[in-house]
Amino acid sequence: MAPYLRDWRGRYQGSARCVVRPGNAGEVAAVVRACVDARVPIVPQGGNTGLCGAATPDASGEAVVLSLQRLNRVRAVDPANNTITVEAGCTLVAVQEAAAAVGRLFPLSLAAEGSCLIGGNLSTNAGGVQVLRYGNTRALTLGLEVVLPSGDLWDGLRGLRKDNTGYDLKQLFIGAEGTLGIITAAVLRLFAQPRATATAWLAIPSPAAALAVLTRLQAAFGELVSACELVSDVALQLVLQHIAGSNAPLAEASDWYLLVELSGGGDDAMLQAGLADCLGEAIAAGEVSDAALAQSGEQAKKLWALRENIAEAQKREGFSIKHDISLPISGIPDFVAAADAALAEAFPGIRCVTFGHVGDGNLHYNQSMVDQADNARLIAGQGAVDRLVHDLVTAAGGSISAEHGIGQLKRDDLARYRSPVELATMRALKQALDPLGLMNPGKLL
Amino acid sequence: MAPYLRDWRGRYQGSARCVVRPGNAGEVAAVVRACVDARVPIVPQGGNTGLCGAATPDASGEAVVLSLQRLNRVRAVDPANNTITVEAGCTLVAVQEAAAAVGRLFPLSLAAEGSCLIGGNLSTNAGGVQVLRYGNTRALTLGLEVVLPSGDLWDGLRGLRKDNTGYDLKQLFIGAEGTLGIITAAVLRLFAQPRATATAWLAIPSPAAALAVLTRLQAAFGELVSACELVSDVALQLVLQHIAGSNAPLAEASDWYLLVELSGGGDDAMLQAGLADCLGEAIAAGEVSDAALAQSGEQAKKLWALRENIAEAQKREGFSIKHDISLPISGIPDFVAAADAALAEAFPGIRCVTFGHVGDGNLHYNQSMVDQADNARLIAGQGAVDRLVHDLVTAAGGSISAEHGIGQLKRDDLARYRSPVELATMRALKQALDPLGLMNPGKLL
Repeated sequence: MAPYLRDWRGRYQGSARCVVRPGNAGEVAAVVRACVDARVPIVPQGGNTGLCGAATPDASGEAVVLSLQRLNRVRAVDPANNTITVEAGCTLVAVQEAAAAVGRLFPLSLAAEGSCLIGGNLSTNAGGVQVLRYGNTRALTLGLEVVLPSGDLWDGLRGLRKDNTGYDLKQLFIGAEGTLGIITAAVLRLFAQPRATATAWLAIPSPAAALAVLTRLQAAFGELVSACELVSDVALQLVLQHIAGSNAPLAEASDWYLLVELSGGGDDAMLQAGLADCLGEAIAAGEVSDAALAQSGEQAKKLWALRENIAEAQKREGFSIKHDISLPISGIPDFVAAADAALAEAFPGIRCVTFGHVGDGNLHYNQSMVDQADNARLIAGQGAVDRLVHDLVTAAGGSISAEHGIGQLKRDDLARYRSPVELATMRALKQALDPLGLMNPGKLL
Repeated sequence: MAPYLRDWRGRYQGSARCVVRPGNAGEVAAVVRACVDARVPIVPQGGNTGLCGAATPDASGEAVVLSLQRLNRVRAVDPANNTITVEAGCTLVAVQEAAAAVGRLFPLSLAAEGSCLIGGNLSTNAGGVQVLRYGNTRALTLGLEVVLPSGDLWDGLRGLRKDNTGYDLKQLFIGAEGTLGIITAAVLRLFAQPRATATAWLAIPSPAAALAVLTRLQAAFGELVSACELVSDVALQLVLQHIAGSNAPLAEASDWYLLVELSGGGDDAMLQAGLADCLGEAIAAGEVSDAALAQSGEQAKKLWALRENIAEAQKREGFSIKHDISLPISGIPDFVAAADAALAEAFPGIRCVTFGHVGDGNLHYNQSMVDQADNARLIAGQGAVDRLVHDLVTAAGGSISAEHGIGQLKRDDLARYRSPVELATMRALKQALDPLGLMNPGKLL
């Protein structure tokens, strides 16, 4: 049972009566009914790649871990409807590949895609690198099949763009982290594969300039803007230092960079020419000081690698405190300035590694000490750092969990930062659907 | 009180104790608390333009009608965050205009936009003509403020693209037709205004050809495809006959037509050239027999008028039975063939006027008798026509209400066509949030 009792990063370790591995939705329902009869709690588990401990049982050993791994069939692909019907145990990569096999794109994409399961993506409303253009997992979902806490199977596998027939039940289960039922299958949206791409790395003077560039690009290209990633020079320097084969794309360093991508119809040359024109205007307006346009897919990959290797580079330096936060996009510049200053004052010698999906308002805002010798002390006092950051996020109208969820990790934070009315309403929903409290207890609420 | 007791089409007439017109969310909450104390039901009402009677009180005279008309402030516009915060009583046109004033697009658009209120659009998850590209009202909503059935005010006015902090409560109230609480304000998404448009009217041999053209356009242009409207020749001929100034766009008639539109960045000429190329390929493939490309905004408007005047032209012929249905897009050709045949057999002399947002799978499928003298008999037996159509829709995995909702009109249909598990789950939610059953009773459930 060991792999099922511990999350992949080894942060959470639990205990369980047993692990059950049903092979279809009917067997999931039978397990749930048996657990209801015996009043035994259930911890649904997908690929076990979550970051907040939502899929790890607690230490009591009371729970049954219900793995969805064996529900791994692609039930249907309908290219004319641009939909795919998959079971919860399909890996994200399997869903992407089944879509590609019929010339379509399933746009959800994230670091764990080879091992995470789509049921987990649905239960955590996963984000990733394509949210700016295609939305999060919720926006990609048309229908669900769910085993309810009663053991009843709800067939909501509808592949419809428009359906106003009562309460939209699927919305309840998406992002509920398995606390309201067990998602066993889903109808997901597919898209035409983009034919052309244009990618550029920009030097910008400030986060405020990132917003100006984003507004300029969206005015010119609308939804063709498929990525807008902010990278601080601190983050880039870590990558250049620790990741072999990394090279700075521009001759001179800048405090901030932006990685932007357009994708759509037409051809690469046309899209790249359009991007070059638009960036020329941004340079003239002082929003961009220098720019490198990828001239090939290979060059674009190298630019993306700089962004994607930040987490790995940071890890080579030792532990860091990570914050998965979101803000109104317009609030990012003031937040970064205020939080950087407050942290520097409260924790002298602290270093902020700031990057993220600025187009979604989603920052990865990570801290460690410049002097490695002091780092253990900072990590030990993580609670104080979190509190400072999350207080400022909340004051700015932001979220303390942009894309990773709540799980065990942020359960107390949720209780702190959400209003009594909101918490009471969430509890009323939980009570209505799971009156015995057997679905993933101790998570989220 | 008369205008508040009758819907705009005069189909529903009710009675009430009184009409209250609060001026802000606090006053709405006070009214709800007073009604809770007195155990008096509440019927929330927006612009009173709904099509299913959700905003009209019943005949008992027990209810208080709560009009949102006076909550009509635009609270905030944030162009850098691409959001607008509006009160429920703003007309849809007022929201569109406030967005345009800062150079942004609020894409929700429908026939009643001058008089419907955004609170009603939210409560019915309104669709309209831009869903293919921008989604329905749900997809345009980031945050809500709601007076709960308890009288508590929930402030969920967050303007965030990513927020995974527990159950996404706003989803419950969108499309709930006022049965779970009263929406008093919302944070809505804005978009860059498209710079270029290309519009064409196509003759196609069949609904199956419409799907092939849609797939071809999306492969070439992705999300730039902003409209794909199917029109039967029966529908076009009604417009040409009854609407002054209407002209057939093509020399020869065809059984079916498609009105397609691209919109995006770049300029008109480039987009129109791209569309012409793509349509040339569609003609070569036999999917399109003839095409008229709009050469100006004026010409595009005339093409759109043909589509938009169908309902009016049909009205001039007398009453008809209307169906607001949706299907998996891939199921449309078989459905139309099967339903046309079944109706012709069951109701000899019936005429189907078929048109709709084929890109969303949403058909307007309307019936009357070819011979006007027989029409009254058909209308009197509408239930049998509805049953035949809705049975076929359900068998094809479709929805009996694509964009208009349930209200009073389809309450019995919902009970017939949704599973016991789904209905029980809806009732559990209703019971959890509104245990006294005072919020818009007799609607939806």
